[in-house]
Amino acid sequence: MKAGRLEAFTDGVVAIAITIMVLELKVPEDGSLAALAERVPILLAYVLSFINVGLYWNNHHHLLQATTRIDGRVLWANLFLLFWLSLVPFVIRWLDASDFSPVATASYGVVLGMAAIGYSLTERAIIACGGRESVVARAVGSDRKGKISLGLYALAIPLAFVLQWLSIALYILVILLWLVPDRRIERIVEE
Amino acid sequence: MKAGRLEAFTDGVVAIAITIMVLELKVPEDGSLAALAERVPILLAYVLSFINVGLYWNNHHHLLQATTRIDGRVLWANLFLLFWLSLVPFVIRWLDASDFSPVATASYGVVLGMAAIGYSLTERAIIACGGRESVVARAVGSDRKGKISLGLYALAIPLAFVLQWLSIALYILVILLWLVPDRRIERIVEE
Amino acid sequence: MKAGRLEAFTDGVVAIAITIMVLELKVPEDGSLAALAERVPILLAYVLSFINVGLYWNNHHHLLQATTRIDGRVLWANLFLLFWLSLVPFVIRWLDASDFSPVATASYGVVLGMAAIGYSLTERAIIACGGRESVVARAVGSDRKGKISLGLYALAIPLAFVLQWLSIALYILVILLWLVPDRRIERIVEE
Amino acid sequence: MKAGRLEAFTDGVVAIAITIMVLELKVPEDGSLAALAERVPILLAYVLSFINVGLYWNNHHHLLQATTRIDGRVLWANLFLLFWLSLVPFVIRWLDASDFSPVATASYGVVLGMAAIGYSLTERAIIACGGRESVVARAVGSDRKGKISLGLYALAIPLAFVLQWLSIALYILVILLWLVPDRRIERIVEE
Repeated sequence: MKAGRLEAFTDGVVAIAITIMVLELKVPEDGSLAALAERVPILLAYVLSFINVGLYWNNHHHLLQATTRIDGRVLWANLFLLFWLSLVPFVIRWLDASDFSPVATASYGVVLGMAAIGYSLTERAIIACGGRESVVARAVGSDRKGKISLGLYALAIPLAFVLQWLSIALYILVILLWLVPDRRIERIVEE
Repeated sequence: MKAGRLEAFTDGVVAIAITIMVLELKVPEDGSLAALAERVPILLAYVLSFINVGLYWNNHHHLLQATTRIDGRVLWANLFLLFWLSLVPFVIRWLDASDFSPVATASYGVVLGMAAIGYSLTERAIIACGGRESVVARAVGSDRKGKISLGLYALAIPLAFVLQWLSIALYILVILLWLVPDRRIERIVEE
Repeated sequence: MKAGRLEAFTDGVVAIAITIMVLELKVPEDGSLAALAERVPILLAYVLSFINVGLYWNNHHHLLQATTRIDGRVLWANLFLLFWLSLVPFVIRWLDASDFSPVATASYGVVLGMAAIGYSLTERAIIACGGRESVVARAVGSDRKGKISLGLYALAIPLAFVLQWLSIALYILVILLWLVPDRRIERIVEE
Repeated sequence: MKAGRLEAFTDGVVAIAITIMVLELKVPEDGSLAALAERVPILLAYVLSFINVGLYWNNHHHLLQATTRIDGRVLWANLFLLFWLSLVPFVIRWLDASDFSPVATASYGVVLGMAAIGYSLTERAIIACGGRESVVARAVGSDRKGKISLGLYALAIPLAFVLQWLSIALYILVILLWLVPDRRIERIVEE
């Protein structure tokens, strides 16, 4: 099975998830600067989520670049990833409506953590399909970054109920960890 | 006529339908776990629908993979399928707003059943276009799964008014039936 | 300039317009059959609009199939067409909110009429770009159907204020006129 | 890295941003012509924004046409551009809700100005990736239009608080400046 259509569908869902996040955000209550200022936290949450989803797209781009064959397992692992990414706009809306309640903050971590698991499952399915010696297998290696991210989410979710802002700081830390693009695949493709 | 653009358009509509389903779901009323718990049934309905639409995409992917020529009849059969898939978010919203009323539950079955008919029409139009000896024709065969699904929907729709949860169980049964991917086309393509 | 990206972008906008139409429709007020029945007219308006937008996509597919070169004028004519198609969901919503008021009914005709003009402009821009002897030029010919459609819209718009349902009948007549696919391009491509 | 998937993703986000702008616009309050007339200013703002986003897509199309290699920096510059374009529907909605308040009018300029910076960053990242002698580098040259646009936005933003309609006139002026398509790339590609 060719990887092209999987890319196209993933791009579609990610493009929509990233764009409709902003669709349901409440606009400032009136035309004053104070009303705009009140909306700053949720706009920052939007920025955070845009970068998060953008990171997934970016890394997905790298991953599929080195992939030629996919099978049904890859399709479903990828759909699992897309499912959780599609929930990001929902959690953002809840964060907004509940004024950053601890439960919503923890849910944000659950959604991102499940997406991270989905990405990791997609990676493994591609490796299982292409063989242990494939470019992706060698490039992904032990997937240290993925494991650290999952650990940080596991830490951040219960923290949301105790020290909410530390929890949010951990979400940002994961982003910083990934902002350094995954050059391993590019390097190995070039070899 | 080339099949590429039909794929692209279908991917677009399916990607949007699958992503906007979550857009109109009401977020929990406040930031409590109890409010989140109240939203669990509708979130499960979302999961169910995500898998359903994902299944159509997945099988569509398999179907078009074996297709090179399409004609106007295929285009319209495909649009008929997309029309019913586009109604899934609408029914989900109604299920949510009417607290899983029997009529909404039955309507969910009508929409899924019509989508199943649309998929079957698309299959037949492709066969009519490619010939009885084509890969698709041989792979689809008597389309037993499609017929069983239609039968189950026909059973589930009236049941929604009497034993609502049995009706929902039948919807889940159809999903389980299809989760086993349609390997026939892959097998015949490989030959 | 290659036509591929124009196709992709058009498919994107059309796929979104066709899918979000249903997004803003009010669901039935409660879970009764009576509430569903009340929603039938607007659901029929949705069907009508789905077919209309589907027709544009279908004919656009045919048109671009015979096109290899495009220029800036084609891009803008196509954007003009997409602009009016993007307004279809807005007018549908207004039809719904204003209970099929005459002004909304007339506006529906204006939006469809402008889209028809946009399609015709795109056709002409492609011909201007490809030459009078091009496949498209020969296939489109005098574009009788396009002219009849515009005439019917011009008639239906004022009629909406006097005999609203006749106006709607004319909108349906235009659809029937186009449901016969434009086989001219297919025929000439085959030659 | 190939430029094709960047194009596809950009087309997706732009297609969605351009289509959902209309989604959240309030429809006229009732079915009267007076209610429609009240909605004219916001519909004009929609037209303005549609053209603006269309211009970005159009120029992006030209830019990528001359690009074969991209790297991580191009991906992120492009995501930065898409982020600001995705905020256009949000600002439009606020303009609508706050009856064209000065703060919302200024914010509109901020969003467009940041998008202009994003486009310019994407251009530079592509040049950095392809070399100073590349087609894009020679075509973009000193990017005079880009600099003038930024200057006009810098002027229009504070003006929104004093002479709001002059500020809007400047936004329209930038559009007129760009409506003349960027033929430089086309010319140099042809050479």
